[in-house]
Amino acid sequence: MNKLEIIGWGSYLPEHTVCFNAQTRHRAGAGESQLGMLVTAARRALNKAGIAAAELDCIVCAAAVGVQPIPCTAALIHEQIALGTAIPALDINSTCTSFLTALDTVSYLIAAARYDTVLIVAGDLASCALNPEQSESFKLFGDGAAAIVVRRTEVEKGVLAAEQRTWSEGAHSTEIRGGLTALPPQRYTESNHADFLFDMQGREVLKLSLQKIPALFDEFWARHGLRPEDIALVIPHQASPALPVMMKTLGFKKGQYVDAVAEYGNMVSASVPFMLCKVLEEGRLKAGDKVLLSGTAAGLTCNIVCLQL
Amino acid sequence: MNKLEIIGWGSYLPEHTVCFNAQTRHRAGAGESQLGMLVTAARRALNKAGIAAAELDCIVCAAAVGVQPIPCTAALIHEQIALGTAIPALDINSTCTSFLTALDTVSYLIAAARYDTVLIVAGDLASCALNPEQSESFKLFGDGAAAIVVRRTEVEKGVLAAEQRTWSEGAHSTEIRGGLTALPPQRYTESNHADFLFDMQGREVLKLSLQKIPALFDEFWARHGLRPEDIALVIPHQASPALPVMMKTLGFKKGQYVDAVAEYGNMVSASVPFMLCKVLEEGRLKAGDKVLLSGTAAGLTCNIVCLQL
Repeated sequence: MNKLEIIGWGSYLPEHTVCFNAQTRHRAGAGESQLGMLVTAARRALNKAGIAAAELDCIVCAAAVGVQPIPCTAALIHEQIALGTAIPALDINSTCTSFLTALDTVSYLIAAARYDTVLIVAGDLASCALNPEQSESFKLFGDGAAAIVVRRTEVEKGVLAAEQRTWSEGAHSTEIRGGLTALPPQRYTESNHADFLFDMQGREVLKLSLQKIPALFDEFWARHGLRPEDIALVIPHQASPALPVMMKTLGFKKGQYVDAVAEYGNMVSASVPFMLCKVLEEGRLKAGDKVLLSGTAAGLTCNIVCLQL
Repeated sequence: MNKLEIIGWGSYLPEHTVCFNAQTRHRAGAGESQLGMLVTAARRALNKAGIAAAELDCIVCAAAVGVQPIPCTAALIHEQIALGTAIPALDINSTCTSFLTALDTVSYLIAAARYDTVLIVAGDLASCALNPEQSESFKLFGDGAAAIVVRRTEVEKGVLAAEQRTWSEGAHSTEIRGGLTALPPQRYTESNHADFLFDMQGREVLKLSLQKIPALFDEFWARHGLRPEDIALVIPHQASPALPVMMKTLGFKKGQYVDAVAEYGNMVSASVPFMLCKVLEEGRLKAGDKVLLSGTAAGLTCNIVCLQL
């Protein structure tokens, strides 16, 4: 186990909502930005932890899409919360599961005593790149941010097990093609404008996920000596309304996992940590509980992180 | 020491050059892309290592700017070299020093036996975002890519010491402001077009660097029990023609560091690994040598990684 404790958490959710039938999505208003959401979530996590930013040893941003191409988003968060310090700032990115990859990776840095206290911030402004002509994704995504502060501990808490896989057969099933070097903003035109928007082939993603993920979970349980019934709560990426289908396939019971697709939709990189913060805030979990964080991301990537609280 | 061995290396340099007085810059031609450069460097590193991509345990992309906003660049590299495998793919980003942050981070994953064999690929297409009206940066940057394959070892080789610092006073001294959520491509106009291009205040960066970095090196030497004279070769980020000034300030002798600013300029994230590959290819270093990789990045970030070969 890579020992660590979650000592603080915080999130940000835009107040403005849009509804599609019974589905609610929070979408940023005119005064809200991705950076603003990230910074607010980070400040709330620091407050909850009761520490000053200067006590952090590292700031990691785990957004799917950055604020600017240069510098990395963590440096821009640093400027807002830790100006005048020398705390290292870096981004870790595996798209929607960036938070899981970051927590997984950071747990090794903490276990090896490279860093003691680390802030991980995730959050995306999905609404700025949704395509109204792609009804499925247009109605699915929401904006938000979430942050946690993790700290090295000597007690039996931390990342018990983690795995990541990427199957690049799905590399083009979820994309934003334009904005960086493959298709720079200078080449934006009326005729290629959709290339600069989010493009998801939901059926292909679901098909590949159902084909690959059950075997990965079998491998995960076997390798780490765990079983679905050991898990107090699964906090899955709120990828789509197909969530219950995937959870059932993986052997989880109704009530054993968080399903808030109707209330929040897919909040990209904030999806898992936002629900983690919510569950921690509600006090639904107790010390010693095993929580499974899991999700799929563009790539197609799947991450599983088993946390012992 | 986080034990690992560099078992393969490879790079890619566009043939096309432009010259500014005695300064040569390699710039991609019409048929060359960032992804193509990254993939070629990765293939060359795998060839040199004599392994198939399927033997990798993780693919890390360490570019400053990505190929597409979604998915992460490592997934796109995966598609070209490892399609059909389940190798995890992720990006690590601290702008120009992304390769150093990635190597530093990966060394913990390898030391803890999470992964045995990891490909780290860096490379940027600076030329697609240079501003002809900013003479300093327009004449300084070049395109290229470089990759290494690192593997866990039991012998005394690996990352002996590493540090990173970020001073966000410099967050806006080196930027590309447009292309992602702060200024999406949809808002590109004739009047704000420069916001979508690279913008560097070289004097400010140098001033902040000279103010912060010497103290960081003092701390680095003291904390890790090393001295400048222990270093067989320094491979610094080829940040600017001010390189010799910084090297002298840090106590390195002429000849003890690689200075190839005249030949290649600043190759962004490829800068350090490209020179590392070149030096390894030339056989200039021997087993046991301590090599110091170091550089500054937008942020302002500074990384130092001491490798024992």
